[in-house]
Amino acid sequence: MKEKEEIIEKMEMADKYFNCSDRERIAFEVGIKLGALFHQFIGTPVSPHNIDILEKSIENTTESQAFVKSAEVNIKPSGSGDEDDENMGPFDYTTLTEDMIEAEVVIEYDGLRAVGEMRYVEEMNYPLMYIKEIDEI
Amino acid sequence: MKEKEEIIEKMEMADKYFNCSDRERIAFEVGIKLGALFHQFIGTPVSPHNIDILEKSIENTTESQAFVKSAEVNIKPSGSGDEDDENMGPFDYTTLTEDMIEAEVVIEYDGLRAVGEMRYVEEMNYPLMYIKEIDEI
Amino acid sequence: MKEKEEIIEKMEMADKYFNCSDRERIAFEVGIKLGALFHQFIGTPVSPHNIDILEKSIENTTESQAFVKSAEVNIKPSGSGDEDDENMGPFDYTTLTEDMIEAEVVIEYDGLRAVGEMRYVEEMNYPLMYIKEIDEI
Amino acid sequence: MKEKEEIIEKMEMADKYFNCSDRERIAFEVGIKLGALFHQFIGTPVSPHNIDILEKSIENTTESQAFVKSAEVNIKPSGSGDEDDENMGPFDYTTLTEDMIEAEVVIEYDGLRAVGEMRYVEEMNYPLMYIKEIDEI
Repeated sequence: MKEKEEIIEKMEMADKYFNCSDRERIAFEVGIKLGALFHQFIGTPVSPHNIDILEKSIENTTESQAFVKSAEVNIKPSGSGDEDDENMGPFDYTTLTEDMIEAEVVIEYDGLRAVGEMRYVEEMNYPLMYIKEIDEI
Repeated sequence: MKEKEEIIEKMEMADKYFNCSDRERIAFEVGIKLGALFHQFIGTPVSPHNIDILEKSIENTTESQAFVKSAEVNIKPSGSGDEDDENMGPFDYTTLTEDMIEAEVVIEYDGLRAVGEMRYVEEMNYPLMYIKEIDEI
Repeated sequence: MKEKEEIIEKMEMADKYFNCSDRERIAFEVGIKLGALFHQFIGTPVSPHNIDILEKSIENTTESQAFVKSAEVNIKPSGSGDEDDENMGPFDYTTLTEDMIEAEVVIEYDGLRAVGEMRYVEEMNYPLMYIKEIDEI
Repeated sequence: MKEKEEIIEKMEMADKYFNCSDRERIAFEVGIKLGALFHQFIGTPVSPHNIDILEKSIENTTESQAFVKSAEVNIKPSGSGDEDDENMGPFDYTTLTEDMIEAEVVIEYDGLRAVGEMRYVEEMNYPLMYIKEIDEI
């Protein structure tokens, strides 16, 4: 694993590329993580037998990225439909779709804490990603 | 295609979920698009014969998303290495890796314009995504 | 680009790892390409404006892989539903789902030609991948 | 979960689409699973902290698909390089690349058992997928 000093040095290198405030930066970082989570895992085969570990794996994967404090993922096998079983396909599995996934990501950066969420909003027919809050720690 | 009024109505629905400034919102939207672009397309087979159309397809795909004004993508077959040919694998193709892709995304939202970039920074050994500017239009 | 001799030499290296007949080998190669196509591109943002280029890009991407002679991809914006517009989401785009994609891949290997297809079979509620034929050329 | 009878009925529906022998069919199914595994997960963020659960998640995800008896995945943080630490990037994580992943998938179909493998072959500079054996059970 990296020494803390080395990570800080690289962070400072990165900072020079940015041309925005700390609050805008943390909002940007939340966006990256939600966009990444969605597009990396949509399409993954999901069955009643692997939901728990898939949720945990997406959480850990997200937490491994820069500035992420925690991530929580909830996969609903039935998506926006009514019938779990109907959704599961003939061989008792399906692929992860946008209406099946809810996620919350908490990021900390330079004294700020931001919470981003993704969930399928029925009235919009859309997997909305949004910023719930940005606060000073 | 959607009527403009319908899109505006749905945008206003979305706005209610956000708890941040317009500048933070647009920074968030830039982050989503760069995170999506990276994680959707990394791993795609790339050959000398499909680079142009793959670039164009990633651009169009990005431009189809909410608030995106334009996108520009540049795939470097050699990545961070020296030899194009070496990188291409035994069957004259390889898979798209983080050091091969450069992208610029321009977003417009509510009177603001933001430019985000992604590129592999050699001295960091890292595909850095950053905000180049946020301006009033 | 690679010299033909170099590609053949690497192919022969690969052959040593296989423990099956040529017909089984070509069936395996068809499976790889359909599995790759599906899981690389499911989740990609799709709008009425980028369908053509996305189809072409998936085709070229598939054709760049080992032993692929040709690929044909058809994306149906409405998926298995009735209404194109309904499916397109509030911002006039959606993400590529399993019921929207049809593909045919033709592979040639060692005097054999195999055709594989993928399409959503309504009565199965499933994106079926299957081998349509394996013939001597 | 599905009743066994229902799964068998849907399997028979699927069988009608195939035009090949059982041995070719099982080879095709192995190919699908390896192509899927590779293209679904390449690009996933990997850190020393999530390798175990990511391996397990890819295994379970693969096992949830049709005809898969078992799957075993091994992620090597250093890929084809020498230094784990160097590979991990400035923020102590990297993205899963083709040279980091080894997998074995066992499929059973209609009295046959097939073993497929994927691993990075240094002398080919290529993530080779191959059939290790197809046997009667």
